[in-house]
Amino acid sequence: MIRHDVFQLFPSISIGGTMKRLIRRFSTLTKDRYPDLKRGSFSSLQDKDVQFFESILNKNQVITDADEVQSYNIDWLKANCGYSSIVLKPRTTEQVSAILKHCNERKLAVCPQGGNTGLVGGGVPVFDEIIISTSLMNKIINLNTLTGVLTCQSGCVLESLSNHLKDHGFIMPIDLGAKGSCQIGGNVSTNAGGLRLLRYGSLHSTVLGVQAVLANGDVVDCMNTLKKDNTGYHLKHLFIGSEGTLGLVTEVAIQCPPLPKATNLALLGLSSFEQVLNAFKLARGNLAEILSSCELMDQDSVKVVEKNLGLTCPLPNMPFYMLIETSGSNMSHDEEKLNMFLETCLEQKVILDGFATSEPSKMKVLWDIRERITGALLKDGYSYKYDVSLPLNVFYDIILEFRERLKDLNQVKTICGYGHLGDGNLHVNMTSSEYDEKIKKTIEPFIYEWISKHRGSISAEHGVGFLKSKYLHFSKTQKEIDMMKSLKSNMDPNGIMNPYKVLF
Amino acid sequence: MIRHDVFQLFPSISIGGTMKRLIRRFSTLTKDRYPDLKRGSFSSLQDKDVQFFESILNKNQVITDADEVQSYNIDWLKANCGYSSIVLKPRTTEQVSAILKHCNERKLAVCPQGGNTGLVGGGVPVFDEIIISTSLMNKIINLNTLTGVLTCQSGCVLESLSNHLKDHGFIMPIDLGAKGSCQIGGNVSTNAGGLRLLRYGSLHSTVLGVQAVLANGDVVDCMNTLKKDNTGYHLKHLFIGSEGTLGLVTEVAIQCPPLPKATNLALLGLSSFEQVLNAFKLARGNLAEILSSCELMDQDSVKVVEKNLGLTCPLPNMPFYMLIETSGSNMSHDEEKLNMFLETCLEQKVILDGFATSEPSKMKVLWDIRERITGALLKDGYSYKYDVSLPLNVFYDIILEFRERLKDLNQVKTICGYGHLGDGNLHVNMTSSEYDEKIKKTIEPFIYEWISKHRGSISAEHGVGFLKSKYLHFSKTQKEIDMMKSLKSNMDPNGIMNPYKVLF
Repeated sequence: MIRHDVFQLFPSISIGGTMKRLIRRFSTLTKDRYPDLKRGSFSSLQDKDVQFFESILNKNQVITDADEVQSYNIDWLKANCGYSSIVLKPRTTEQVSAILKHCNERKLAVCPQGGNTGLVGGGVPVFDEIIISTSLMNKIINLNTLTGVLTCQSGCVLESLSNHLKDHGFIMPIDLGAKGSCQIGGNVSTNAGGLRLLRYGSLHSTVLGVQAVLANGDVVDCMNTLKKDNTGYHLKHLFIGSEGTLGLVTEVAIQCPPLPKATNLALLGLSSFEQVLNAFKLARGNLAEILSSCELMDQDSVKVVEKNLGLTCPLPNMPFYMLIETSGSNMSHDEEKLNMFLETCLEQKVILDGFATSEPSKMKVLWDIRERITGALLKDGYSYKYDVSLPLNVFYDIILEFRERLKDLNQVKTICGYGHLGDGNLHVNMTSSEYDEKIKKTIEPFIYEWISKHRGSISAEHGVGFLKSKYLHFSKTQKEIDMMKSLKSNMDPNGIMNPYKVLF
Repeated sequence: MIRHDVFQLFPSISIGGTMKRLIRRFSTLTKDRYPDLKRGSFSSLQDKDVQFFESILNKNQVITDADEVQSYNIDWLKANCGYSSIVLKPRTTEQVSAILKHCNERKLAVCPQGGNTGLVGGGVPVFDEIIISTSLMNKIINLNTLTGVLTCQSGCVLESLSNHLKDHGFIMPIDLGAKGSCQIGGNVSTNAGGLRLLRYGSLHSTVLGVQAVLANGDVVDCMNTLKKDNTGYHLKHLFIGSEGTLGLVTEVAIQCPPLPKATNLALLGLSSFEQVLNAFKLARGNLAEILSSCELMDQDSVKVVEKNLGLTCPLPNMPFYMLIETSGSNMSHDEEKLNMFLETCLEQKVILDGFATSEPSKMKVLWDIRERITGALLKDGYSYKYDVSLPLNVFYDIILEFRERLKDLNQVKTICGYGHLGDGNLHVNMTSSEYDEKIKKTIEPFIYEWISKHRGSISAEHGVGFLKSKYLHFSKTQKEIDMMKSLKSNMDPNGIMNPYKVLF
């Protein structure tokens, strides 16, 4: 696997010279961007540490070449950049355990890294933390073709798992734009959401088992493959969504649903957000158990994909777009339900226009528009990204609020909203040609106050990472934060696991 | 609400004289049944404690009348009996907080109790723990009719929540035989499974928010009502399934699915367990997204209901029975799928006989047979109950194993297996007219060793409680148990929350 496949997400940028120029151009170190931030009182890497790592790992598993390490120091958003001097690439749980045991004894901070596709700076170092990349832990251990339970190492890339499952009549219960690069261990550690959550639930529901290594090197093996197991505390949930701060996930067991026999996708054009909500209600009623995705894109989201990536949307100039996917076991039943839904939408004038397709190549064209918005925005230069949950009655108001608030800042190139409407989850994005402190300060902390006031979540699916840790109190009470801190210091007394992230 | 409605589960026993005789007959104290068990070094209840409780609660919320307290000391299985002298019935979270704060400062042990329908002795005291009953905390706080999110206090009875939801077009994502008595707080605290798990997933997936009071009286309010919230550690999961040992659940927010527009139920008669598996595979393939229950009953399970409760099964003398339920949005589509499934089963000689119905009264007759097996077994006298997860290839072997192992013990009245086949969960039951140490010792610990050898779970959905705590290591590694103990001592340093349960 090529390390740089994170840039599959950003396909028009080649890996060679352009990549290096990009890194040079945007590599403001996080520590310089946040001068008040103090490095924790961790030890610094010494020759004897490198020698220890080289004694337990092969040569190609210990990377110290500055150029090569650099691509692990910076996230693909170009917003966060550490200055670690070493990347370790274990292949086994035992190697992870030995690394962490050493780091804990030496009080060396570590930063676990999966596919490096995170959007909140959780997967790259803030200072000089040792990077532990799981990318060589990419073995599929087993697929039980009777039950659909897949067990694999944490470094398996989501798309390669999907491809493997497809051959056996199953699909992954999770799918997201970054599938070509993101790793299942990172998905689990961040409780990633994505396009199929509406149908198959969150990873708290589909992940049956987790194996993780604690800060002190202890291996906690909760690799249950049973659907039901009520013996004691449900420890796996501590590792799902704690972003590598409580342990490093090394193996995962996940319940995979059967591959649907019939898939349909409809693209709708709508005149207002009110009509979007009406369409959603009709979809839930008419499509019910076969509804598998309900995505929203506003006009500016689609425009940026057209402008920056040259894609073409088949329904031009609609104020709002929805992608409605159905997955079921009987094509004629599903088509009947979907046609009934579309007819009702047209009759009731809920949509301006719309069409459905079950042809894979056509569905791909439509999904591409939705999935490549993030990459398209990044071509504007710098993205200010917010991933929020909001009650549906104020869902789109946040975009209107920011159009107003940012209207005098000419540096702003795009303001758009898109996301998983069916799960109450909106991606709020603004861009400028480069990072602009004034824009940032006009957005933050106002946006978090606004979300908190409307009882939303300041991070629906992207997690807290580094970028949002100081805003945690906008979504969590002090007692909750206290309990989190108590858990953290109980499980990682030296605080070596992914410091400066989540709780800070 | 009448306190004794737990006996709705056991309808042929009236609450008055019979109940009292039953209690007298079976009230061997747990401490006498387990003479080696030592009471923890907790304080004993003093007059000043009672005075404190009376100062913060109304008169009818502090029960000290010995007769009345007795019905809270004993579980409905008649297998576990403590000797607490007080029951507290708070109405609010603040009252729970004040009670626990006092108990923690005084080192008084407490036993949280919901509907007292548990099957592992988790909800009654082992010694003299103060019983905190949530039965007066029965307020529905809100139902969001757009999103289907229900918020309520923990003492709401499951069936009354279901009835409330039905009027608004929703259903609870959980359903179980004890629904007339069990409380949502107990369901959450034990991660109860039940009949709809196959379709809607476990409570880890449907519970959006939990409010709980910690041992020291701190209220941890994770009452999120959003579908997605990735801000920090997912604390609610610590309270789901920890059986009141980490905190007392006071409020719950739960995602409720829309009421299905079409429900069908099929009863199948089959000749062998091999054919049961074939029918399950066909059901998954043909019914897919509308399959909502897949239950198994063996011949002896049905016989005991017929013999002890006088019910009649419409298909007589089948070696195995299955109940296959579909829930969907379009009756004609669903019936077409179900008919296709039944035809295929008959054509391929997978079933001996079978029929489907969508008539509510007929469906109730069929569900009654399944749901009342537990009560019917109890009429034999004493039930040795085991609730296990097993891989499907050895699923029913455990029953055959015990028929052989117990064949010379004439005291054994029934040996049967039934349960949630679709979730890999079997209820293994043996009965005798009264508790028999020899039978118990022939079953245990052999049964746990057998399950462990076959990589199953010794408790699929009933939890660990008191009865299974010493067998936890058959399903969990020492590292997992160590981590659980560490969490427990971190969150409840004095160990007052439901002692002798889960970890012991």
